[in-house]
Amino acid sequence: MTGTSSIRDVAMKGAGYYSRSTAGAKDVIDNATPMVLDAAAALPIPGDGRPITVADMGCADGGTSMEMIGKVLRALRRRAPGTPIQMVYTDLPRNDFSQLFQNVHGLTDLESPLLDIPEVYVFASGTTFHKGIFPPGSLHLGFSATASHYISEKPCPIPDHVHMVGAGGAVRAAYEAQGARDLEAMMLQRARELVSGGRLALFNFGIDEAGRYLGNTGGVSMFDTFNELWRDLAGQGAISRDEYRNTNFAQCYRTVDQFCAPLTDEESPVYRAGLRLSHVETRVVRCPYERDFAGHGDAARFAAEYIPTLRSWSEHTFMAGLSPDRTAAERQAVVDRFYDSYEDRVRRKPEGHAMDYVHIYLVCEKV
Amino acid sequence: MTGTSSIRDVAMKGAGYYSRSTAGAKDVIDNATPMVLDAAAALPIPGDGRPITVADMGCADGGTSMEMIGKVLRALRRRAPGTPIQMVYTDLPRNDFSQLFQNVHGLTDLESPLLDIPEVYVFASGTTFHKGIFPPGSLHLGFSATASHYISEKPCPIPDHVHMVGAGGAVRAAYEAQGARDLEAMMLQRARELVSGGRLALFNFGIDEAGRYLGNTGGVSMFDTFNELWRDLAGQGAISRDEYRNTNFAQCYRTVDQFCAPLTDEESPVYRAGLRLSHVETRVVRCPYERDFAGHGDAARFAAEYIPTLRSWSEHTFMAGLSPDRTAAERQAVVDRFYDSYEDRVRRKPEGHAMDYVHIYLVCEKV
Repeated sequence: MTGTSSIRDVAMKGAGYYSRSTAGAKDVIDNATPMVLDAAAALPIPGDGRPITVADMGCADGGTSMEMIGKVLRALRRRAPGTPIQMVYTDLPRNDFSQLFQNVHGLTDLESPLLDIPEVYVFASGTTFHKGIFPPGSLHLGFSATASHYISEKPCPIPDHVHMVGAGGAVRAAYEAQGARDLEAMMLQRARELVSGGRLALFNFGIDEAGRYLGNTGGVSMFDTFNELWRDLAGQGAISRDEYRNTNFAQCYRTVDQFCAPLTDEESPVYRAGLRLSHVETRVVRCPYERDFAGHGDAARFAAEYIPTLRSWSEHTFMAGLSPDRTAAERQAVVDRFYDSYEDRVRRKPEGHAMDYVHIYLVCEKV
Repeated sequence: MTGTSSIRDVAMKGAGYYSRSTAGAKDVIDNATPMVLDAAAALPIPGDGRPITVADMGCADGGTSMEMIGKVLRALRRRAPGTPIQMVYTDLPRNDFSQLFQNVHGLTDLESPLLDIPEVYVFASGTTFHKGIFPPGSLHLGFSATASHYISEKPCPIPDHVHMVGAGGAVRAAYEAQGARDLEAMMLQRARELVSGGRLALFNFGIDEAGRYLGNTGGVSMFDTFNELWRDLAGQGAISRDEYRNTNFAQCYRTVDQFCAPLTDEESPVYRAGLRLSHVETRVVRCPYERDFAGHGDAARFAAEYIPTLRSWSEHTFMAGLSPDRTAAERQAVVDRFYDSYEDRVRRKPEGHAMDYVHIYLVCEKV
């Protein structure tokens, strides 16, 4: 789970906070590792001394994907013992790339599996995945988890909710249109960059066939709770009506059909550029904090452990929604009060709270 | 001027501090740009769709080399309009790579010339230049300024000085041997990575034919001043004798002969790996703060402007020399007192103080 928002929070919270608070995001990747290994097994291997290039796009500090990347690179090493591998981590410029390199180069508590694999060359890119990251025809395997729900700009305010999943009508349509434009831009760039036979594995936050999405899997809806508690602050006068209206996640959750359309519609520029759908499925990965709670039954502990995982990726959005006329300390106090109210609500009535992950898993091939 | 030491200071001092405090380091690069442009003009251009790869090794925040890199990439763009260019910035993992990407991608006050050049792909690497950064035979033009004087480890304490330029006998020999080992390792890695006909431009702190080196060009010696003032703190009991002894720059200033030996000695592994000396010269670039002082004549202003440029790359070494038993605040207070005493000394008697840059400029070719 990455992008501008989470990244700023990571930078604020310091080393390791992000990966520690995103155990579920790691589960999502670990559980789907066989899909990436299958893609790696099908890649064409360059026979002319050129390197195999693998990318993790939207990598944050590299922690959640480290174990999977290790398995993939070891598999490629076995397939092509003499071929150099370039492992490229990408994220937005404000990402903590120093933390990423420290993790990857084994300078932190995280165990880096990349150190033991010969002829692996690690790089980073600060180029958004909506633009060109790699030279044409040079990327073999692109991977991106829990990143492409970030859109490049907010098309309009959402007047009555904090997230587009709570919006309807023209507002929802505007977010969906922005989401479609960004997805097309991202896929077109990758179609240009992939070698023929190259693969793209995208594990995206989305809306599954049953209408479920992150934190909305039958119990209490997380985004509705965000919205209620933030609106309550407006009702209490702690934030202004404008601040409430201006607080919106720059995200679009897409349906399976919306994700697949560029890859299956023969008229789409992505299809015409040669990118094809190889595999799609949806999965729900259970919230690890709620799962722990089912074991220990301590509501206060659950609340205390659960809120940081929400906060790790959402805090920036709430901070950014507040007026720039406020001091940083004022903004922080408002946001602290907000998360305290969420924690309080979970502690009083923990039943139904769960940030279950709902992902749409796509594997694409460049023909 | 980069490496572990300066990097930590940059991270501590925040955005832009490093480049602002290193106007002289930018002069060094700007003045020598024609050498890099000549090297770029002689490069072989790949004809098979592979990219041209250019590297800035020891880049810090990219600010001092930005203008030069812009000229080089524009020249390559003109020579090879259709060939993608990979621009790779490298430094140690703790470098502020986020600041680098923000600078390069035009998100700061610095004007980035890289934005306007088509088909340029920017990457970073956190791999030390003493190890392999690139796949074999993939690097076209390697550049490194004011970076290779950092050695990979200190061979021993320097009991009576802070820098190896003030050491003699076995201690100096140990630093020179470490410097030779690191230079050979760096050059061997580059020899492996460069394409045939590829070039390496190294602008290094060193000792010129007249025995001059950084801050030691006939006036007051900067490193001797560092040493005197630091020893004074030991004399006053502000630091212990052990702290004095343990404060040493992890650097080796090499002579012209020492720099050239791996490239001209037919028995050396670097020579045997195909790296050859194309050009060597030494230059002294005048301290911009002392030059300003010659104009304005205000000793207090000179002292206030001069000390930060010394501090930007030296502070970490003095902090690191202090006992880990001290609190961070204690260490900072000692180091503040130290630089205050330096500023005081310059203010009282400014004549002769100058951090003139003394560089040895090498251009090598892979045959």
